[in-house]
Amino acid sequence: MTQRPTRPTPDAPDSPWRTLRATEIYRNPWLTVTEFGVTRPDGSAGVYSVADPGDNVTIAAVDGEGRVLLVRDFIFPLQRWSWSLPGGAVEPEEDPLAAARRELAEEAELVAGDWLPLGSFWLTPGISPQTSLCFLARDLRAIAARSEPTEVISRVWTPLDDALDRCRHGEMRHATAALTLWLAREHLGGSGA
Amino acid sequence: MTQRPTRPTPDAPDSPWRTLRATEIYRNPWLTVTEFGVTRPDGSAGVYSVADPGDNVTIAAVDGEGRVLLVRDFIFPLQRWSWSLPGGAVEPEEDPLAAARRELAEEAELVAGDWLPLGSFWLTPGISPQTSLCFLARDLRAIAARSEPTEVISRVWTPLDDALDRCRHGEMRHATAALTLWLAREHLGGSGA
Repeated sequence: MTQRPTRPTPDAPDSPWRTLRATEIYRNPWLTVTEFGVTRPDGSAGVYSVADPGDNVTIAAVDGEGRVLLVRDFIFPLQRWSWSLPGGAVEPEEDPLAAARRELAEEAELVAGDWLPLGSFWLTPGISPQTSLCFLARDLRAIAARSEPTEVISRVWTPLDDALDRCRHGEMRHATAALTLWLAREHLGGSGA
Repeated sequence: MTQRPTRPTPDAPDSPWRTLRATEIYRNPWLTVTEFGVTRPDGSAGVYSVADPGDNVTIAAVDGEGRVLLVRDFIFPLQRWSWSLPGGAVEPEEDPLAAARRELAEEAELVAGDWLPLGSFWLTPGISPQTSLCFLARDLRAIAARSEPTEVISRVWTPLDDALDRCRHGEMRHATAALTLWLAREHLGGSGA
């Protein structure tokens, strides 16, 4: 597998910080941690550490009846089960749309004939360059696919407005899912104001 | 300063993972990285690493004319300047509302007489337990405050719908800002459908 490059590098011309060194602290296939030695905007010396899991994709797969597919899996860092939208990491050198197609096949066992990029967001930019790309997938067709062995997933189709209500009321708390559903609702029109 | 505890621990009773060990990889005042030795849901052995910057708060400070305050600062992990909403990390053992009051004073030089929690979201739950708490602050009063030395901030008041449009069109890409503005717009009503 291609190794994920160290981000960020080099300093932007308009950066008020100066980077003096980059020390790789940790790397596994899913996460890279780098400590940068810096001169802060006020001129003092310090460190700025960046955790980079790579970018990710989130997919609102909407069928002909206006229902969206939710998937349920276990969130290890929060030690709880939760409903969310299909999605996952963009592999190094993978095109985001290719990643979205792959995740939709793996997690939802679906292929889509109609893909629309809805936007992209920075998830936790204080510590990470991770960017999440949101997609609307329509013209869906079921396929036989095989989930990754570590992922335990159940699935449900629910009206788009019900899914948005789950985000409003704290029942579905993935930031990427809420943003993707909000943008999908705005694109498709309707009562999700 | 109180040290941030290692999260998650212990295993939830309904977890399909088993945690065998926790190894602290890195810790600075802003980030903790822990590698957990695990048995995966399929029974295989592996590691699951968690990067925890702690929780954070984001504040939509809305004045009597329906304008929201945007702040601009430099995002080191992305090496670019960006507009966003006031906010920042919740310190260990700090109450989230207290953190929101502190950040609004530090970043916006404002105090608010009326605080409303709008919701909370997981930012990047595949690698982190980090939760973002969104607040609406009204009944605003300017104070003299001192920004932290490493933060370089300019500020602008803009109509709430204009700020939401910046999120829709990729000009403001902080996930927490977009979610907070969406929920603030829904709470306040109006044309932000």
